[in-house]
Amino acid sequence: MAKKTRIVQMGLGPIGNKVTQFLAEKAGIEIVGAIDADPAKAGQDIGVLAGLPALGVKVTADMKAVLGGKDVDVVILTTTSSLVKTADQLAELLPYGVNVISSCEELSYPWLTNPGLAGKIDKLARENNVAVLATGVNPGFLMDYLPVVMTGVCRNVRKVTVERIQDATFRRIPFQKKIGAGLTVAQFHEKVKEGTLRHVGLTESMHMIASCLGWKLDKTEDIISPIVAEYEVKTEGLSVKAGDVLGVQQIGRGIVAGEELVTMIFRAAIGQPDVRDRIVIDGTPSLDSSFKGGVNGDVATCAILINAIPSVVSARPGLRTMVDIQAPHCFK
Amino acid sequence: MAKKTRIVQMGLGPIGNKVTQFLAEKAGIEIVGAIDADPAKAGQDIGVLAGLPALGVKVTADMKAVLGGKDVDVVILTTTSSLVKTADQLAELLPYGVNVISSCEELSYPWLTNPGLAGKIDKLARENNVAVLATGVNPGFLMDYLPVVMTGVCRNVRKVTVERIQDATFRRIPFQKKIGAGLTVAQFHEKVKEGTLRHVGLTESMHMIASCLGWKLDKTEDIISPIVAEYEVKTEGLSVKAGDVLGVQQIGRGIVAGEELVTMIFRAAIGQPDVRDRIVIDGTPSLDSSFKGGVNGDVATCAILINAIPSVVSARPGLRTMVDIQAPHCFK
Repeated sequence: MAKKTRIVQMGLGPIGNKVTQFLAEKAGIEIVGAIDADPAKAGQDIGVLAGLPALGVKVTADMKAVLGGKDVDVVILTTTSSLVKTADQLAELLPYGVNVISSCEELSYPWLTNPGLAGKIDKLARENNVAVLATGVNPGFLMDYLPVVMTGVCRNVRKVTVERIQDATFRRIPFQKKIGAGLTVAQFHEKVKEGTLRHVGLTESMHMIASCLGWKLDKTEDIISPIVAEYEVKTEGLSVKAGDVLGVQQIGRGIVAGEELVTMIFRAAIGQPDVRDRIVIDGTPSLDSSFKGGVNGDVATCAILINAIPSVVSARPGLRTMVDIQAPHCFK
Repeated sequence: MAKKTRIVQMGLGPIGNKVTQFLAEKAGIEIVGAIDADPAKAGQDIGVLAGLPALGVKVTADMKAVLGGKDVDVVILTTTSSLVKTADQLAELLPYGVNVISSCEELSYPWLTNPGLAGKIDKLARENNVAVLATGVNPGFLMDYLPVVMTGVCRNVRKVTVERIQDATFRRIPFQKKIGAGLTVAQFHEKVKEGTLRHVGLTESMHMIASCLGWKLDKTEDIISPIVAEYEVKTEGLSVKAGDVLGVQQIGRGIVAGEELVTMIFRAAIGQPDVRDRIVIDGTPSLDSSFKGGVNGDVATCAILINAIPSVVSARPGLRTMVDIQAPHCFK
């Protein structure tokens, strides 16, 4: 029998707990440790935290106890969207000689948004002979990697447009809050100013696409605005008055020599019509691809974190991105 | 300035000539040689053969003169659909220490259809420290690689169905003939028996998908049938009487423990309605993705052969498939 791949989870919030559920189904995977700084989680079984029977793996804040001298293949890091914070955590993790798969949006393609930190992480990973990858449904798949993959059959590409239009009506309440649903327009703008209401990753996605196609973006924009209710809208857990916020729209624009060559349209709101994930490539040939009904983001993010495990284990050492590893795919 | 990637083309039929056109547009590519056994092509300039101005590269049958002691990165091999014939050509090519990208359909995923030859090619490639890849639009992309990539966001997959439905009305006459358009039904079946009328690759595509998902196919079927004209149909170059053949349908079925887990529906005919390239994944989440208007196969096959160059140059030595290299994408 082939040796199981030995996984440690770090960060046991909602995404981490769902990752536990998915990992527990994989025959070739063994979860061998769990790290979280939250004292309230210390000593708890990760199976129980995930709503499963106990898995015999207890959470601890003590990284050294979990990784020191142990045989661990990959750490799944689901702690933060911040590249700066993730870099600190990687500085602690990588010297243990573990590969890392992170959900950090800003780490998905940091080569142009923060080349200094990207280079540091790359160097540290290579010194420790391990690979680091950040992925997720978006950034990491729908709005960057998949459009790049589709250009594989193109003789040339003139422009790429990606639309991710989601109806948040039946998503969990934390997601509805995250997109600003139920806020007044003033509160929405306040939260944008604070930096707490924003889909992180459009700029990274645009840079990934542009770099692959050989375009140097002179300028990127990521413009956020509220989607406002024209009349009162009620969901199971939330009621939004006319004039208040149903959700968020973000438009990303990547400009080369005054021309907009990459466009990202991200919209997530309660009652949003015309749900779709659409990739339009203006090129030879032109391509217009859509997912009917879109792609469920909660499931997809956790799935791709796990499906990337074999690709990361076999990757060249260093900071990798989705476009320089072998294709992650579902496995047993 | 970065060193250009040095390419030799082998096989200068219609696909090879189109590859020349596309290669000539790439700033980072230099065509340094051309090999074809056809005496009628000997001494001809590959640019002229491709309908371009002369490129200063003459065709020769003398492989040693082109590759011996020369600095060549990749040979683009567009000679045959036959794995057996391709294996013979690779046995000559690989000892020159060149990577090879081939359009041979049967080489796209030969690990289960012909494990003996696949193993031999893999060994020879590793001995010569080079990588070999076969790709194309289909097999190689639409009906295998892209469905596999899409499962990357799936927690689990129960079944995969791929449809490639093409209208041949405006395709070149050789393509129309290749799919049997204009034949009587009896002639169609005769050609099928001879093995000269068949889309090659459905079985390879099914094995690629199944292997990635951890399924072992107990049985595969690839059933070919004519699409028959109900009334007379005329195109620019062809007239098909009622009762004669408009094109071909092939249905691939991959069976695991009595259940059909992979289904391929390939149809190419004159006047074919509902043109589409569609990938349906029954899983968590289920995905239903379509290309509006389908994907032009002539352009796409040549594009992916070229777009795979950087992925093959950086690949691990051995016989590679699309699912174990980094994503090919359009480049400048």
